[in-house]
Amino acid sequence: MTGRFITVEGTEGVGKSTNLAFIEGFLRSRAIDVITTREPGGTPLAEELRELLLAKREEPVDACAELLMVFAARAQHLNQLVAPALARGQWVLCDRFTDATYAYQGAGRGLSLETISKLEFLVQGSLQPDITVWLDIDVRLGLERARARADLDRFEEEDVSFFERVRAGYRARAEEAPARFCRINAGQPLAQVQTDIQRALEAFL
Amino acid sequence: MTGRFITVEGTEGVGKSTNLAFIEGFLRSRAIDVITTREPGGTPLAEELRELLLAKREEPVDACAELLMVFAARAQHLNQLVAPALARGQWVLCDRFTDATYAYQGAGRGLSLETISKLEFLVQGSLQPDITVWLDIDVRLGLERARARADLDRFEEEDVSFFERVRAGYRARAEEAPARFCRINAGQPLAQVQTDIQRALEAFL
Repeated sequence: MTGRFITVEGTEGVGKSTNLAFIEGFLRSRAIDVITTREPGGTPLAEELRELLLAKREEPVDACAELLMVFAARAQHLNQLVAPALARGQWVLCDRFTDATYAYQGAGRGLSLETISKLEFLVQGSLQPDITVWLDIDVRLGLERARARADLDRFEEEDVSFFERVRAGYRARAEEAPARFCRINAGQPLAQVQTDIQRALEAFL
Repeated sequence: MTGRFITVEGTEGVGKSTNLAFIEGFLRSRAIDVITTREPGGTPLAEELRELLLAKREEPVDACAELLMVFAARAQHLNQLVAPALARGQWVLCDRFTDATYAYQGAGRGLSLETISKLEFLVQGSLQPDITVWLDIDVRLGLERARARADLDRFEEEDVSFFERVRAGYRARAEEAPARFCRINAGQPLAQVQTDIQRALEAFL
């Protein structure tokens, strides 16, 4: 009797935080015991790695170093938090997971998808999310929203073409795993986005 | 006309700092332009990763996360500092490198040597040190020295059996690459250790 693993994905400004809270509330309303967490992060060490990853710095960050830091944080998060929670029967709702690595470091940075796949197997074995809610939006619209709200991190400072590649990376992942991926049009009014998310979760339940 | 890459390896308390300074001085006396650096570390980001790796913490550190952090720091260090210096013709003298990963994370923590070898190829391609000075000492003697001098980091807190495995890991590496490895008996008086190191470097030059 293990819990289910739900991930939420998308580029900047798609409304991930708002909709993660909505999904958590929906699951609790169905009496599901759910832990909400995020990647990179989710444990003290993994959150420290997140800070190193997002910090803007003078030093150029090597793409392979970035990829290995992402998977280091993931190994710590999975082994210390996600896998034990699932084994106890709790559900885990995670803000980004390995699809983001294929999208950002693979499609965005141009790293080999085969390398990512090997690291994925090293760190996760056969563990995959049960359902992935992909909040998809026009990249320019999302960036306008994201850039209106706060200081930009090292990723948010990338240009539009980077995020177009990331979005295409998510699209490719969705096409490879259509049974797991649920694409939500995040450019709609919020009420409609949440209606669509709820419908997808009800179908999943 | 590329520089040469010299690494110095060994368990705790073998006298690495003293002998790195000795090697650097010897090379400079031969008019060799040398950069001294260390792993994990050597660039600002890689030094931040070093701090995360060495910090003592409540949270157990997943061995795979540790391994990926080590290689993340190495990718950054190699691409930002070591490889450009070698390409300019400078020599690089490095306090620990990938042999330490085989010894500490492989032999010490019990991680798969095949996994380490794949990560080594991902991060380094075919780059290997030209010569590795292995300062070898009885583990208990080394630990007595190390523990007399300062606060212990997360690795130095391990027990004797861990360091016995690490030492055996170094021995196995030395047996696999006898042309590159130069074992120095670091249990001798310092003057004799340095005579032996100098003789090895003269043979290398």
